[in-house]
Amino acid sequence: MTADTLLGADLLSIDQLSRAGIVEVLEAAEAFAEVSRRSVPRVPTLRGKLVATLFFEESTRTRMSFETAAKRLSADVASLAVASSSVKKGESLRDTAQTVEALGADVVIIRHAHAGAPERVTGWLEDARVINAGDGWHEHPSQALLDCFTVREARCAALGEPAEGSGAGPFEGLEVLIVGDVRHSRVARSEVRCYLTLGARVTLCAPGTLLPRDAEEWGVEMVSDLDDVLADADVVSLLRLQTERGSGAFVPSLEEFTANYGLTERRAAMLKPSALVTHPGPMVRGVEIASTVADAANALVLRQVANGVAVRMAILYLVLGGEPERLAEAT
Amino acid sequence: MTADTLLGADLLSIDQLSRAGIVEVLEAAEAFAEVSRRSVPRVPTLRGKLVATLFFEESTRTRMSFETAAKRLSADVASLAVASSSVKKGESLRDTAQTVEALGADVVIIRHAHAGAPERVTGWLEDARVINAGDGWHEHPSQALLDCFTVREARCAALGEPAEGSGAGPFEGLEVLIVGDVRHSRVARSEVRCYLTLGARVTLCAPGTLLPRDAEEWGVEMVSDLDDVLADADVVSLLRLQTERGSGAFVPSLEEFTANYGLTERRAAMLKPSALVTHPGPMVRGVEIASTVADAANALVLRQVANGVAVRMAILYLVLGGEPERLAEAT
Amino acid sequence: MTADTLLGADLLSIDQLSRAGIVEVLEAAEAFAEVSRRSVPRVPTLRGKLVATLFFEESTRTRMSFETAAKRLSADVASLAVASSSVKKGESLRDTAQTVEALGADVVIIRHAHAGAPERVTGWLEDARVINAGDGWHEHPSQALLDCFTVREARCAALGEPAEGSGAGPFEGLEVLIVGDVRHSRVARSEVRCYLTLGARVTLCAPGTLLPRDAEEWGVEMVSDLDDVLADADVVSLLRLQTERGSGAFVPSLEEFTANYGLTERRAAMLKPSALVTHPGPMVRGVEIASTVADAANALVLRQVANGVAVRMAILYLVLGGEPERLAEAT
Repeated sequence: MTADTLLGADLLSIDQLSRAGIVEVLEAAEAFAEVSRRSVPRVPTLRGKLVATLFFEESTRTRMSFETAAKRLSADVASLAVASSSVKKGESLRDTAQTVEALGADVVIIRHAHAGAPERVTGWLEDARVINAGDGWHEHPSQALLDCFTVREARCAALGEPAEGSGAGPFEGLEVLIVGDVRHSRVARSEVRCYLTLGARVTLCAPGTLLPRDAEEWGVEMVSDLDDVLADADVVSLLRLQTERGSGAFVPSLEEFTANYGLTERRAAMLKPSALVTHPGPMVRGVEIASTVADAANALVLRQVANGVAVRMAILYLVLGGEPERLAEAT
Repeated sequence: MTADTLLGADLLSIDQLSRAGIVEVLEAAEAFAEVSRRSVPRVPTLRGKLVATLFFEESTRTRMSFETAAKRLSADVASLAVASSSVKKGESLRDTAQTVEALGADVVIIRHAHAGAPERVTGWLEDARVINAGDGWHEHPSQALLDCFTVREARCAALGEPAEGSGAGPFEGLEVLIVGDVRHSRVARSEVRCYLTLGARVTLCAPGTLLPRDAEEWGVEMVSDLDDVLADADVVSLLRLQTERGSGAFVPSLEEFTANYGLTERRAAMLKPSALVTHPGPMVRGVEIASTVADAANALVLRQVANGVAVRMAILYLVLGGEPERLAEAT
Repeated sequence: MTADTLLGADLLSIDQLSRAGIVEVLEAAEAFAEVSRRSVPRVPTLRGKLVATLFFEESTRTRMSFETAAKRLSADVASLAVASSSVKKGESLRDTAQTVEALGADVVIIRHAHAGAPERVTGWLEDARVINAGDGWHEHPSQALLDCFTVREARCAALGEPAEGSGAGPFEGLEVLIVGDVRHSRVARSEVRCYLTLGARVTLCAPGTLLPRDAEEWGVEMVSDLDDVLADADVVSLLRLQTERGSGAFVPSLEEFTANYGLTERRAAMLKPSALVTHPGPMVRGVEIASTVADAANALVLRQVANGVAVRMAILYLVLGGEPERLAEAT
């Protein structure tokens, strides 16, 4: 069962949301993107709320993005530096999460090496909402939502139309090509679900060793030769080689990976002029993407970062019970 | 000499406070607990004040608790990440503390591996107040105060009476049993002094190797067989095995420690129905306490965490010169 | 070419500023020092601005000083913990900096092991201003500005005159003696330029191995015997032995360094009564400076720390486009 709204819910995976539920987030994020463009990008919407980040894996941009989003909503932020924390003294995830709630957290944003950890936490908390900021190879839903928000924005801009109110329209018939280490990528899992639900078609391109075993059930095409499919893509979503999650053992060498699956200048020239390129960052230039390609106008990497704050403002607003109908007051 | 008030003083140890001084903190904390329950748990009381945390030992909950307390009082917070700081470049504790004061800190909250370090710092600062957040095996006064606050709250609730205004009454004749690694526990030292001053009786239960050498002067009973004393306890205060402060060498094995001193299900069944269980956290479930016992209704662990913020608001308010008579305005 | 103002510019080096440009900062800092002395040391001047610190080298006081300055101006602060960040995943400095700007940073404060890194970053950002908080052995301009601010303040106080409005007057004919590891010190490079531009004379005193190779072009005197020059100095600027940047290999031993270049009690007695002593901190007492000398009335170490916040408020105000003429409104 999928839900048509994120209102008052936890955000654990894209799977939990229907097309209407995803569009709700995208539309709310448009309102918060407008706030972000103001000279004082701050609204009092979540004043007095405490947003806790609980990152058991290192991160720069995701944590800073959520924290910036929380501050723009006037929430307080508490960051648990897990590496130097009670966890080292033998505390369980359950007790850590319950402690953070007892300290007053209204929402707990969790990144954890184990798939399903954020979902387990929901069963242990009384009132606080949980947001999954990446769990093992499973999901990273806010990343997929900001990727789709950014693609929608760019598609609408190309047509000279407003993104706000465009719903899932810009995804109709869209050809999305996801390239790289799909197997170890929670971003890929969330993106596949998000794009498919919005009506796009998805093709995965990776060496067999980096394709997930259950991908046949995902409702996507799978190919291994990148050159064959580049010309058809409307969106190329590149993934980072997750060397810290074990992808190194699955490719003969970085050079060979780049030769076969990197978006080199030669390959970029094979794309449609209108094709868009996304990357969740951090990029390793020269491996997944050539440096000149990363800097080209159709590469949306920095737009993804900027939009991430607006999308996460929308997520925080909704999970904490902000009604979509009252967005005008909230922004 | 003990003082009847914390007003404008440093908080270095429970020893410095008389019964009236401890009750003053408990009563002020009731007022701030009410603030914590509001939908916007924030008062402007310490606006413009800078609260600096200077933690030379790792901590999650104590630092986050103090910082949350400071923010609810609208103070600014600066956290010195000591592990990555000037200290590594050879700076003395004195210069670090004076630097933090020169940067504008109005209160410096210190955790340090050496007993007496916070007291030494008071001699080096001009105006800033010092709060001891744990010094070696010596004291951890804010923890003892929040433990007593939580026990008082639970005792009053059981009687259907308000905790506010109950003074030291709920501690009359109270039998407190402190179990575990007393030797290496600053929490135990502060608790003993706090409970005794409030009028309770205290029994320590630990293997001889984990009892402090000077405990005979503490005015407490000491026993080594936990089963003998469980039935008499009104409060069981469990302590963490301080493996990072050397307790590992004093017990034959964790299994044997648990067999003799862990609050197992069998032992929990020996307690009075009204007995309360506290633990300063982080708990190691299965060692000091069985998991089911930690989750039982009479285990106050999460109430301790929640109350810790209110107690630390009271401490910050008082040491920065907030008068108890003006609490109504301050909250 | 040097500029007469920091208004709307990046702060990369002292070299970029004329005497008028340096005096502008000193005068603005006087106004912010007045703010810092208020009971609520906070003005709404930079409300809604996001100040990001990007420290690729460890620091306590500089980062905390900038963050305190930003908060007193009501800006938001985001600190990138670089050691636990994307940089470890292979991200380039360029992408890290652009990401921080995309997250909304209006100013990026950078400390980096490589000389010139902050300047390179300016070429990669669209709108955000860059402040150099120390780059390799190159420059640390805010430190030199706060040192000169502190010396001016002390000189004027000795004469019973207001520092505000004194311009570069207090530096006329001033004899500044910089002692220690000049070679590895970015503070020394910035100080030399700042003092010379303000009209002072500068002498460097160090063993030949700790003098920079290009120092002959700096317009300073160089001596190797400290005892010869102490009696002439109006200001003695001590430098830290930068053991983490390689100075250890250049001195036979700490003891020998102290014997020849430490400001011992014997040497302090050779100074004029009016001579001032500065140290950028963290001090290693007993190495660069005797403990009693560090605590004497003419040692300005803690004044430097306190003034650092005001100077950095001025820098943030100016680089973000605050006009010197409108300081009265801004404070």
